[in-house]
Amino acid sequence: MKNILIIGCGLLGSSLVRKISRKKIAKKILIYEKSKKNILKIKKLKLPGILIKKLQDGVLQSNLIIFCIPMSEYKKTILKINKYLTPKQIITDVGSSKIKSGEIIKKNLKKKIFWTSSHPIAGSEVSGPEYGNHDLFNNKWCVLIKDKQTNLKHLKILRIFWKKIGSKTVVMDSDKHDKIFSMTSHLPHLIAYNLVKSAQDFEKKQRYNLLKYSAGGLRDFSRIAASNEIMWRDIFFNNKKNVLKAIDIFIKNLNAFKRDINYKNDKSILKKLIQTKKVRSKILKLKQDINKPNFGRD
Amino acid sequence: MKNILIIGCGLLGSSLVRKISRKKIAKKILIYEKSKKNILKIKKLKLPGILIKKLQDGVLQSNLIIFCIPMSEYKKTILKINKYLTPKQIITDVGSSKIKSGEIIKKNLKKKIFWTSSHPIAGSEVSGPEYGNHDLFNNKWCVLIKDKQTNLKHLKILRIFWKKIGSKTVVMDSDKHDKIFSMTSHLPHLIAYNLVKSAQDFEKKQRYNLLKYSAGGLRDFSRIAASNEIMWRDIFFNNKKNVLKAIDIFIKNLNAFKRDINYKNDKSILKKLIQTKKVRSKILKLKQDINKPNFGRD
Repeated sequence: MKNILIIGCGLLGSSLVRKISRKKIAKKILIYEKSKKNILKIKKLKLPGILIKKLQDGVLQSNLIIFCIPMSEYKKTILKINKYLTPKQIITDVGSSKIKSGEIIKKNLKKKIFWTSSHPIAGSEVSGPEYGNHDLFNNKWCVLIKDKQTNLKHLKILRIFWKKIGSKTVVMDSDKHDKIFSMTSHLPHLIAYNLVKSAQDFEKKQRYNLLKYSAGGLRDFSRIAASNEIMWRDIFFNNKKNVLKAIDIFIKNLNAFKRDINYKNDKSILKKLIQTKKVRSKILKLKQDINKPNFGRD
Repeated sequence: MKNILIIGCGLLGSSLVRKISRKKIAKKILIYEKSKKNILKIKKLKLPGILIKKLQDGVLQSNLIIFCIPMSEYKKTILKINKYLTPKQIITDVGSSKIKSGEIIKKNLKKKIFWTSSHPIAGSEVSGPEYGNHDLFNNKWCVLIKDKQTNLKHLKILRIFWKKIGSKTVVMDSDKHDKIFSMTSHLPHLIAYNLVKSAQDFEKKQRYNLLKYSAGGLRDFSRIAASNEIMWRDIFFNNKKNVLKAIDIFIKNLNAFKRDINYKNDKSILKKLIQTKKVRSKILKLKQDINKPNFGRD
C-alpha cells in the first residue's frame, strides 16, 4: 500500500492512523477532518499523518481511502470526491450497518468505481481522536462485505490490510451482516439507551437520587448508553428493518418474563435464567470478553 | 462484637468472613453452610471461620447473625432457629429486596425478636465461596432498612458493623428501597436476561454463530445474565409489584423508540440519545463505576 487517506479522524480513524504508522503499512498517511475541535486535538496529539485541507488533495494521491465518518455523511462526501476517483483505488468504510449504506453508495458513487465495505467490531463509549489507540483492532473481528458488485481483487487486498491492522477477518454479505449485528450490537445499544431513559423518567417522578445506587446493574448499561449519538442514530435508521424486528422479539420475550413473574411461574423462569447463563460461558470461550468477574473493574 | 454467625457461605457470606477476620471484628466467626460442595471448598480455601454442623450451635453462641442465603430459604431457616433466639441478638440479612422478605420475617420470626435488614450493593456474576473477596464491600453502599418495627439500637450497631466492613451506609424504609432497586438493579438484570434470551431465540432460527460477534454490545449484557438464577428468581418474585411497574415504563419507552426509528424522527431520537449520555457522567462522578473506556477491560 502506498498512500492511505483517512476521512474522519475520530476514535476509529485516529486508531487506524496510529496503527498504520506503527506497522509502516503506508508510505504516506493523509488525514481529512472537518471538525475544527478535532483538528486542534490531532495537532496537539502529533498524530503520525498529514492533515490535508482539501479533500480532493488526499483523494488524488491515495491508493486506499477509508471513510471513518458517520454514515449520514457518506452521500455528501461521495459527491465531493466522485470526480477525482479512479477504478484502481480501494475505497472502504467502517460503518456498522451495510444494506442501507450500500444503497446510498450505489446510488451516488460514480460508475465503474468500486467500494468494498468493512466493519471492524471495535469501538468504545468515548469519541474523538484523543481516545484512539493503535491496539483498538487487535484480535477483534473485522467483517468484510461481499455482495454481487464486490471487486474480488479489492476484497483480497483489503482483507490483507485488516489483518496487518491486527484484526481477524470474516467475509459475509450485507444481508447476513445486518441481521447478525441487529441482534449482537444494535438492539443491545437501543436497550441500554432505553433502560437509562426509563431510569431517568422514574427519577423525575420519584426524586430519589437513583444514580447513587447504580452499581447494582444500571451502571453497565449507562456505559453503552453514553455512545456517540450521531453514529447510533444513523445505525438505528439505516438498519431499521432488522432493528424493528429485533425489538419485537425482545418485547415478546419481555412480556413472557412479565407473565412468569406475575404468576410466579417457577419452572419457566428458572429454565430461562439457567439457559442465558450458558451464553456467558460461550462468549468467554470465544474470547469475546475478559474472563474476570465484573469485567475485572473492581 | 463477640461472635458472628454467617448463614450461607457463598460469594457474599465468604467475603464477609474474610473481611471480619482481617479487621478482627469478631472473637469467633461461625459458618453454617448447607451445600456439601461449598463445605469442601470452604475447607480447601481455609476460610478463617469455624464450620458448624448444627445451625443451633451457631445461633446459641452468636451476638450477630447474618443471613447470606437466597430469600426463598428465609422462612425454613427462621423456623429452624426460632427457639434458640433471644431479643439481644442482632439478626440481619443481605437480601436484595425488602418488602416481601420483611413480611415473611414478621410472619415467621418468634415474637420479641428483632430483625434489622441490610442490603450491601455488592456482588458479581459469579457465585460460590471461591470468588469471595475481603474487598467486595469497600466503598460500596450498604442500605439499612428502618421500618416501624426496627430496633434503633440494633440499627445503630449494625451501621457501625457495615462501616467496619468498608461500606458506606444509608438508611431508608423498605418501600423506598424496593422502588429504587427495582429500577437500578432488578430491571437491568431482567433486561439483560431478556436480551440474551432474545439473542438465543434469534440464533436458533437463523443459525449464524452470533456469539462470535458479541463484542459489539451483547457481551456486556451476557455478564449480568450469568448471575445466580435462584437469587434472581427470588428477587423478581419478591419485588414483583415494583418490577412489573418498571417493565411497563421500559416497554412504553421502547415503543416510543420504535416509533422514532420507524418514522425516522431525528429530533426526538437525538434528544434521547444525548440525554442518556449525561447519566454516564453522573454515575462516574458518583464513583459508581470505573472511569475508563470499556470498563478498562481491553
